[in-house]
Amino acid sequence: MRATVPTRVLILGGGFGGVYTAVNLERILERELTRGEVEIALVSRDNYLTFQPMLPEVVSGSIGILDTITPIRRLCPRTDLYTRAIEEVDLGRRRVTLASGVGPRQLHLEYDHLVIALGNVTSFAGQPGLAEHALPFKYLGDALTLRNHAIHALEEADIERDPRARGGLLTFVVAGGGFSGVEAVAELNDFVRSAARSFRNIRPEEISVVLLHAGDLILPELPKDLAGFAQRLLMKRGVEVRLNARLAGATAEAALLKNGERVETRTLVSTVPGGPNPVVAAIPCPKDRGRIVTDLHLEVPGHAGVWAVGDCALVTDAATGEVSPPTAQHAVREGRCAAENIAAAIRGTAKRAFAFRALGKMGSLGHRSAVAQVFGLKLSGFLAWWLWRTVYLMKLPGLDRKLRVAVDWTLDLLLPSDIVQLRTDRAVSIRREHFEAGQAIFREGDHGDWLYIIEDGQVEVRKAISGQGETPIRRLGPGDCFGEIALLGDHVRTASTHSLTSANVLAIDRDACQALLSTLPPLRDFFNRLLEERVGMRPESSDAHLSDEVASPITQEAAR
Amino acid sequence: MRATVPTRVLILGGGFGGVYTAVNLERILERELTRGEVEIALVSRDNYLTFQPMLPEVVSGSIGILDTITPIRRLCPRTDLYTRAIEEVDLGRRRVTLASGVGPRQLHLEYDHLVIALGNVTSFAGQPGLAEHALPFKYLGDALTLRNHAIHALEEADIERDPRARGGLLTFVVAGGGFSGVEAVAELNDFVRSAARSFRNIRPEEISVVLLHAGDLILPELPKDLAGFAQRLLMKRGVEVRLNARLAGATAEAALLKNGERVETRTLVSTVPGGPNPVVAAIPCPKDRGRIVTDLHLEVPGHAGVWAVGDCALVTDAATGEVSPPTAQHAVREGRCAAENIAAAIRGTAKRAFAFRALGKMGSLGHRSAVAQVFGLKLSGFLAWWLWRTVYLMKLPGLDRKLRVAVDWTLDLLLPSDIVQLRTDRAVSIRREHFEAGQAIFREGDHGDWLYIIEDGQVEVRKAISGQGETPIRRLGPGDCFGEIALLGDHVRTASTHSLTSANVLAIDRDACQALLSTLPPLRDFFNRLLEERVGMRPESSDAHLSDEVASPITQEAAR
Repeated sequence: MRATVPTRVLILGGGFGGVYTAVNLERILERELTRGEVEIALVSRDNYLTFQPMLPEVVSGSIGILDTITPIRRLCPRTDLYTRAIEEVDLGRRRVTLASGVGPRQLHLEYDHLVIALGNVTSFAGQPGLAEHALPFKYLGDALTLRNHAIHALEEADIERDPRARGGLLTFVVAGGGFSGVEAVAELNDFVRSAARSFRNIRPEEISVVLLHAGDLILPELPKDLAGFAQRLLMKRGVEVRLNARLAGATAEAALLKNGERVETRTLVSTVPGGPNPVVAAIPCPKDRGRIVTDLHLEVPGHAGVWAVGDCALVTDAATGEVSPPTAQHAVREGRCAAENIAAAIRGTAKRAFAFRALGKMGSLGHRSAVAQVFGLKLSGFLAWWLWRTVYLMKLPGLDRKLRVAVDWTLDLLLPSDIVQLRTDRAVSIRREHFEAGQAIFREGDHGDWLYIIEDGQVEVRKAISGQGETPIRRLGPGDCFGEIALLGDHVRTASTHSLTSANVLAIDRDACQALLSTLPPLRDFFNRLLEERVGMRPESSDAHLSDEVASPITQEAAR
Repeated sequence: MRATVPTRVLILGGGFGGVYTAVNLERILERELTRGEVEIALVSRDNYLTFQPMLPEVVSGSIGILDTITPIRRLCPRTDLYTRAIEEVDLGRRRVTLASGVGPRQLHLEYDHLVIALGNVTSFAGQPGLAEHALPFKYLGDALTLRNHAIHALEEADIERDPRARGGLLTFVVAGGGFSGVEAVAELNDFVRSAARSFRNIRPEEISVVLLHAGDLILPELPKDLAGFAQRLLMKRGVEVRLNARLAGATAEAALLKNGERVETRTLVSTVPGGPNPVVAAIPCPKDRGRIVTDLHLEVPGHAGVWAVGDCALVTDAATGEVSPPTAQHAVREGRCAAENIAAAIRGTAKRAFAFRALGKMGSLGHRSAVAQVFGLKLSGFLAWWLWRTVYLMKLPGLDRKLRVAVDWTLDLLLPSDIVQLRTDRAVSIRREHFEAGQAIFREGDHGDWLYIIEDGQVEVRKAISGQGETPIRRLGPGDCFGEIALLGDHVRTASTHSLTSANVLAIDRDACQALLSTLPPLRDFFNRLLEERVGMRPESSDAHLSDEVASPITQEAAR
């Protein structure tokens, strides 16, 4: 007997695993969907599928921004798409809770079959300063941010005269020597070197592009000779490959390595693989190093109707007994297998075990060069690059995207690289910053735009006193503020500050600070008391405009 | 005798006026530039020139995001470009101060000739709620934001079941019936109607696109018959044209009209002309309604060596005696005239008076239709559209851009419209909101993600009490907080709030709030006292998890 309530299949995640599960479910269960016996829903952060192998080319602008991505609605038109964050997965009640959208209400989705395809996330946990100062490289937005960031660094370098500041602005560091790091550094290197030619005051030899790799040969996924080819090629193009170098932390001005070395840079990209998605981490089911354990049919043991595919799943190949690697090739096949097995469960037919042998591995090295290992063959140079382009063009979902990318690639052979800097993001009003021991946070005479509050660590305030040089006047710890004098009075910094230890600091910009002070009287009182107290403690009172500031500490300017 | 110090020409503004001044200076003063006798610098917010007539097509995606803009460095390669904000123009010391960049130091630029080409800015002053809830439409970033916003509204509407909320999400309002408003509403209408076809649960008749115009016929720049043609065409395509309707304010949920009517919408675009640039407003020189007065040579009377061009300048045509309108055509010619006259001043030759007769006026209506008035001829429909495309393609600076746009337009004839939503902007942690009298701010049972602080206005807190319905329990005014119970405890709202008057409110999100509370002890104490006090005042204490919350008000969660 057929149930009158439709069977609900809910897919979590809009990457290759999730989207291809939906695509195959729509194909296999076409009859049931038409009769209203089955409903498919998919929850995704973005409304598009990102074709990650092409993200590095978004950085260099050699393909259009929108052409690496395909609208999910177009790929699976009979699936309900929810572009909201997931708040909770309740396996017991068979229910998933989504965050509120434009309105303030959460959404609850119930399911009969649940497919978990949430991938992994960029996680900077345990590496001080990375969350604040390193750029991730996973989503389309990351590629755009990196592109804008690199152009901004060139813009600033063009008008900067201090050699050390110029050095940091013109140094671009990528951490991670796997496929994504190598492809990213190759395109970034091509891009900044080509874009820099449009800047009047930047000499090519000032630019330094660095790849940090933890091992002693990049591309551990490939045979040694191919990896060696790639490494030599990158070096020939001007990439400094630092082997056995592991990223340990970052500040706004430098990448900090595990061996204590530091590389001064304003652009640090981390492609080091991320941790499990926090939503996955919170699901109480068997896991192995963060990945959800599945049986041969991709179902989660002990949870009938719960399936896992892609990077968040531990999938054992039925033919080889090996664990499937976290690649798009595998996610696509796992999605198909899960779709077939869900259809089999709904129809009461037999399930099949997952088995798939990878077709090959490829990595682009920019400038019409690549490395590839396909069906046992090893290729490098132009032939590998041609193969790379052709295969990815064929794999890119949607005919319109194929056409657009083909046109982009053709134009790119003819036209100069683009240097426009797109700024769509609004000012961030509160941010966290990390400082290493001994780092200057700001210097006397600097322009003051931020108020700082110490989360942890020690900071010393110093002031230049005639005849004595720079003298410590105050030591601050967790919960203490600094920077308020210049901020609240629209003046330059009247003292300098240095972190004595590694320190995490909350920084609040002028607008946010004034908005908070003008609306929260206890905060205003606190800062007024602080200003009075600090001026009383001040060793010298010769500074005329300081006293002015204090006479009306936070009145008109801030209260407006 | 020749001076050994080069003559410095400093141009403020990277629009058509500023960039074409630089382009022409480079051409005319080529010899002096090569000998190092002249230096040209230009300060611009962005490193590209935006071709505004094509911005509406970015919304619909019919041309590539980067193809409406041209890098300024490519157009004037011998000019030093500073992409920083201007903080001060000091005519007395002949010095311009730029804001700090990556580092904390300001930059001071001295000049012999100053060209002010700062245009005007979108200004929502005096219209409550517009700064918070209306989208401007001037820069490329605005077009991208509008595109993403419209797609987000469709995404949310697709999964929203409440009819009133759906109505607001599917209503798109553009204020201003001049060229930019009409072009924007035409493309927005085409785009949302075409994109909506990819959404399963949106019916075409649910979509409503509204144009608000203060007069009784749109396009006052054009003859009445052409304007009438455009107005009828928009209405035929499904745009609701509301005449004699003036925008007076906005909330997150509605556009408020001057006559007291309201249009429920989640997407409000204002193209109403902006006010003078605040930097221009602060320059002490003769002005007429915010525009800098210039003589026949475009020099500012009484300030030798100071020139003004473009929308920020009041330029009188030497031939007709009329004031030049604020269009790109005029800005380009004014830039050339200013460049010639600066060269004349440097060389000691004669200056020329500015005179230019506009070639024509054109407005695109989307869908291969337009209106145009060229050399006295009036055109409408396909022919006008063809002319519009051809003329703008010819005017688009740079051969590579021409080629890319031509290719985009060709592909656009063949391919479906794109619905991917690009989110590059980070979460805004503090924002302002405007509420009209009687509006619900949140309701009991809603999910609570924001803490609110009243800047001005009155807010009432109400609670459902069994047998009595919703009962007022507290009235709040400026400086009072609300929403803290749900926010700090990760719970749903335990009461509802309504504005009693028109109210401006500062909203702080969960992350920002916790960061502030964990670092600022006085703020934490304040909220702990507030929570205790409010729970003491509470008329009922049956709410179990509320007391839980209060037992450890802001400890673990917030202090982490």
